[in-house]
Amino acid sequence: MATKNQTKVVAEPGRQELFITREFEAPRELVFKAFTDPDLLTRWLGPCDMTMRIDVMEPGDGGYWRFVHIDQKGNEYGFHGVTHEVAAPERVIRTFEFEGLPEKGHVAMETAIFEALPGDRTRVTVQSVFRSVADRDGMVQSGMERGVVDSHQKLDEILATELQLG
Amino acid sequence: MATKNQTKVVAEPGRQELFITREFEAPRELVFKAFTDPDLLTRWLGPCDMTMRIDVMEPGDGGYWRFVHIDQKGNEYGFHGVTHEVAAPERVIRTFEFEGLPEKGHVAMETAIFEALPGDRTRVTVQSVFRSVADRDGMVQSGMERGVVDSHQKLDEILATELQLG
Repeated sequence: MATKNQTKVVAEPGRQELFITREFEAPRELVFKAFTDPDLLTRWLGPCDMTMRIDVMEPGDGGYWRFVHIDQKGNEYGFHGVTHEVAAPERVIRTFEFEGLPEKGHVAMETAIFEALPGDRTRVTVQSVFRSVADRDGMVQSGMERGVVDSHQKLDEILATELQLG
Repeated sequence: MATKNQTKVVAEPGRQELFITREFEAPRELVFKAFTDPDLLTRWLGPCDMTMRIDVMEPGDGGYWRFVHIDQKGNEYGFHGVTHEVAAPERVIRTFEFEGLPEKGHVAMETAIFEALPGDRTRVTVQSVFRSVADRDGMVQSGMERGVVDSHQKLDEILATELQLG
């Protein structure tokens, strides 16, 4: 069951950060779990035409993670980072690096904030801070928005299913 | 033996980053070691009137670290984070959080770049990217520059000693 909630990506010109905002029809604890539980995460993260594999996802502060998205031809796109803080059910702060870039070291720091809204709804805001405006612009131009929108639509359905299962 | 090398701190108004630049009279491998070897690090990091303790410093990518600076009255100032990448002898990328702030989550991402210069000299550039301009300004106003300048002067002496010891 898809919702009418829209994913908003804001990247103000000349700044080295971007913001992704989305509301979900589920309570904060469940949305937080969907972002941090490997079994739930593999069911929604990534573009619709790719599958997703979690290679490593160490829990808690200091945990290392590596995710791989796989397209229909079998090409793999890897991402990895380390988690600075998991403050359930409010906040996760971690580093993030796409392994497909021509050189290493173009790392971003991501802060995901989970806000409880009236009516058992939740607003998620993800801020990514980059080492440069160019790194930020490269991420925007990579077509990441489509992958994020796809992901959130899949997440809508998973949250609805989880709520039905109780 | 102190050098004439100056520590430069640049924080352009309105931006969410700052840069610390310093040159050292020692080859890159030794300067890199002084930043990443716990025994060397405790001898120079921090203001002149404080001692320093390393609680944790896990080596390599994904490592957690926690440092404590202790003033002459015994007050402790803690810092911690996680290391995204250690690329010896060129680059270290990690997160950084001062534990003395009124609330948690004001994290920065630090990238230290080590450049070999002619004459067995080294330039170190540390970029810190913050979640906001206010976080960046707060760090600048905390008097961090004095601590950085003190640290680098102590490091000059340690590098000279290490070079003499061969």
